[in-house]
Amino acid sequence: MTEINQIEANDLVQLQGFEGKTKIIKLIKGQSHQSKDGVINHDEIIGLNWGETIASHMGKRFFCLRPALDDLLRSVNRKTQTLYPKDMAYILLSMGIGPGDEIVEIGTGSGAMTIAMAHSVGTSGKVFTYERRPEIQQTAIENVERLGYSQQVEFVLGDVVDGIGQSNQRALFVDMPDPEMYVEQFKNCLQIGGFFACILPTTNQVSALLLVLKRNGFALFEVSEILHRYYKPVARRLRPADSMVAHTGFLVFARHVDENELKDKL
Amino acid sequence: MTEINQIEANDLVQLQGFEGKTKIIKLIKGQSHQSKDGVINHDEIIGLNWGETIASHMGKRFFCLRPALDDLLRSVNRKTQTLYPKDMAYILLSMGIGPGDEIVEIGTGSGAMTIAMAHSVGTSGKVFTYERRPEIQQTAIENVERLGYSQQVEFVLGDVVDGIGQSNQRALFVDMPDPEMYVEQFKNCLQIGGFFACILPTTNQVSALLLVLKRNGFALFEVSEILHRYYKPVARRLRPADSMVAHTGFLVFARHVDENELKDKL
Amino acid sequence: MTEINQIEANDLVQLQGFEGKTKIIKLIKGQSHQSKDGVINHDEIIGLNWGETIASHMGKRFFCLRPALDDLLRSVNRKTQTLYPKDMAYILLSMGIGPGDEIVEIGTGSGAMTIAMAHSVGTSGKVFTYERRPEIQQTAIENVERLGYSQQVEFVLGDVVDGIGQSNQRALFVDMPDPEMYVEQFKNCLQIGGFFACILPTTNQVSALLLVLKRNGFALFEVSEILHRYYKPVARRLRPADSMVAHTGFLVFARHVDENELKDKL
Amino acid sequence: MTEINQIEANDLVQLQGFEGKTKIIKLIKGQSHQSKDGVINHDEIIGLNWGETIASHMGKRFFCLRPALDDLLRSVNRKTQTLYPKDMAYILLSMGIGPGDEIVEIGTGSGAMTIAMAHSVGTSGKVFTYERRPEIQQTAIENVERLGYSQQVEFVLGDVVDGIGQSNQRALFVDMPDPEMYVEQFKNCLQIGGFFACILPTTNQVSALLLVLKRNGFALFEVSEILHRYYKPVARRLRPADSMVAHTGFLVFARHVDENELKDKL
Repeated sequence: MTEINQIEANDLVQLQGFEGKTKIIKLIKGQSHQSKDGVINHDEIIGLNWGETIASHMGKRFFCLRPALDDLLRSVNRKTQTLYPKDMAYILLSMGIGPGDEIVEIGTGSGAMTIAMAHSVGTSGKVFTYERRPEIQQTAIENVERLGYSQQVEFVLGDVVDGIGQSNQRALFVDMPDPEMYVEQFKNCLQIGGFFACILPTTNQVSALLLVLKRNGFALFEVSEILHRYYKPVARRLRPADSMVAHTGFLVFARHVDENELKDKL
Repeated sequence: MTEINQIEANDLVQLQGFEGKTKIIKLIKGQSHQSKDGVINHDEIIGLNWGETIASHMGKRFFCLRPALDDLLRSVNRKTQTLYPKDMAYILLSMGIGPGDEIVEIGTGSGAMTIAMAHSVGTSGKVFTYERRPEIQQTAIENVERLGYSQQVEFVLGDVVDGIGQSNQRALFVDMPDPEMYVEQFKNCLQIGGFFACILPTTNQVSALLLVLKRNGFALFEVSEILHRYYKPVARRLRPADSMVAHTGFLVFARHVDENELKDKL
Repeated sequence: MTEINQIEANDLVQLQGFEGKTKIIKLIKGQSHQSKDGVINHDEIIGLNWGETIASHMGKRFFCLRPALDDLLRSVNRKTQTLYPKDMAYILLSMGIGPGDEIVEIGTGSGAMTIAMAHSVGTSGKVFTYERRPEIQQTAIENVERLGYSQQVEFVLGDVVDGIGQSNQRALFVDMPDPEMYVEQFKNCLQIGGFFACILPTTNQVSALLLVLKRNGFALFEVSEILHRYYKPVARRLRPADSMVAHTGFLVFARHVDENELKDKL
Repeated sequence: MTEINQIEANDLVQLQGFEGKTKIIKLIKGQSHQSKDGVINHDEIIGLNWGETIASHMGKRFFCLRPALDDLLRSVNRKTQTLYPKDMAYILLSMGIGPGDEIVEIGTGSGAMTIAMAHSVGTSGKVFTYERRPEIQQTAIENVERLGYSQQVEFVLGDVVDGIGQSNQRALFVDMPDPEMYVEQFKNCLQIGGFFACILPTTNQVSALLLVLKRNGFALFEVSEILHRYYKPVARRLRPADSMVAHTGFLVFARHVDENELKDKL
């Protein structure tokens, strides 16, 4: 693979300090990055090789790394509560999202999941993402743009109660507090066999959603939770970290199946 | 998206029973699928729409679903212990694998992770996967072929001790019992800033690997574990499942950074 | 401590095999213990020192150990689903049960928790335990007797709907499917400041109980879950066990406080 | 039960605020308790009934509750890292500690576990607890005294390398960083069949200890971890707390068995 190894203008660079501090910036000729650790001129980074280090005017050194999706997702401006990489990763795999796919998202939020999906479907795919609140959508648009995924994302401002513009979709991801109110709309959006996924913080919401999904031609349910436990990466004193994120949300998966078959049988 | 909704010959179909039983088959004209639940002729499935049901000669009904990546991964012939979707998903996201990427895998095993990576990189990407044992590799080749990912996978039979044919790679995934013996080879394979990921079952292996990685120009370590807790999807009696898979492996992530910088500093 | 180290008739002995098999028996002169591993005469064990081994007629050897509470609890005849040691231990500590205490239990079941409480309060304490079903109670009576805790346990056959005979109690433990129906009775049983604890398998039950407790002069709630993760105890390949019990029940704790104060304030 | 329900001088009282703040104080005639929430005169509490509320001079109200063991343990002055109730509870149950028992503790620390054990054995039992550091021991002595458990605790200042004064013990609990150095001493302290328990923060320590225990006549190992997951106790929005204590320590249990038998067999 003849990947270009030199950092260029307009690249996103992850400045990773020795002590674990991390910041993702977009390199603009003539600009500079300022933090408590000092000033770094973008022009000094442009032309370096990926992986080299740069020092601030205060002498603090940072690795100049190509940001990973994981890093990008953590850098997203969070005006709303967002999913964690552990959840996003499993949702994507569970619905089998890959290059060229289309997917519909209800509840854009800050756009973290939008970006994860846009990354997975690539420029030949498409993510349609719905958000009711204009100012939240604006944040997401900026996040998606900054990280270079605008081409494959279509933002829709509006309430799902008015219907979802896409139909016959193979995958739908929902992140909203009362999804049980919109199951009819979800059904009209999904093809038979299509994948439905949802994240919900409380057990009561999960119960409410399951009840309505089961009455409306959904089947093959999975409810699960992903827990991510970090360890202190010290060879001679290996141990779990003292505290952990104990809950982000319950994941609910289902598939839209042939309703008449279900009615006959269940 | 004008996706064709009719099931065709040579398609992979997930036969999903009402009671949760699932089987993925490849539709070959004239063939039939036999199980304890009866016989189903492939020709009866060809021409159905995705999501419709088919009955065996014994009257047992199955949904005919497009298999998701998750389902495909669980169907892989397991002569070796394989990763679980929860682990594969997080590794892919954590290394930012997406359409068009190249990645090197050491330890093909049954090919489950190979398939997950092949799915993520798509036909414009490439997965180089190394395996020492010819019969294990053969299983993986068959699995990859059956699921339709052969185009983007290159199988290499051989021992990593003799070196990895690729260099300047951005991502390397390792699934072998003694990775600490081959860190030199990993370094030569990865570009500066490149992503290293490994799964290991025991704490002793993690300690051994961390020790050698730190001495050899790797940094930015993460050691973590993904736990997946299922719930019984019953609205009025929502509760976690009685038992769970409590351990598959510890995940070790690191990045290959500029060695001289590290030597100066650390 | 001048503990007698010799095993005597009528002692409970834990026969612990080298391969982890364990069985607790009561030594009766002239009797013998039969299993797939062969016959052991009780008289051969009587007179041994604690910790010595005995061989069956087939040559299988077993350690003769003093059973711990944990071992005894696991040996209890389980006609009903019982709590696990992890749960029982935390409930006891959380309610501060100790020597000389009185405690009321609603839902005797197989008597496992009854035994754990009887052990903690000792012969100077008292456990009042209620059970509706005579045949279940009979099993519990036998279990408690066999393990030698009859002195401090008072079995009551009856439905809590008819009231709890004890009042002004400092601790009440409830293990029944619909505790929210009997909160009035719980209140009349507990002193102001008294400890209430309950185990419930589903999230819906927890919600239902919390709602009624809050309306009836209970406060200082804790809802939690105890997870117990075993490791393979192998020094050079230390790792979590492959599977684990993922759920026994949710624990709900509350204290009965001054109702008027609560009404003024909350 | 004719429990006296009136609060008296010298009682320990748990002042529990409506917002969850909690403080345990000892009532001394004429003294007052001061905090950010205002001043409370002890004399105003003396004579109240347990469970009533008291207001500070600023009008903040607190329930006056009998402290539970759990509450007392959390109030212990912590100059050293202490065990959590979840761990203490399981260790006590696993070793079957109850009224009248003797137990030896190595590593008194702040005395939290000492108190938990003293509570369980009662005034007819005995806890021998060893600590090397005089100032740490002093803290423990004060904690044990303040909570009223001095009668059944014997503090020993000294290093275990010099041996443990007690022998033929049925239970030994060890909380020190390098227990593998003192297995000979542990063996001399325990009777055949005796219970050994230890808490250790790192996997490396667990491996080191297991190795030495196995070579020295210990058997029937259990290595496990207790995880405690709290839920927000809100009926209509029931969900796990956002974060949790992810690690306190690994628990190692073993029993001292007949060495010669082991040598013959293992």
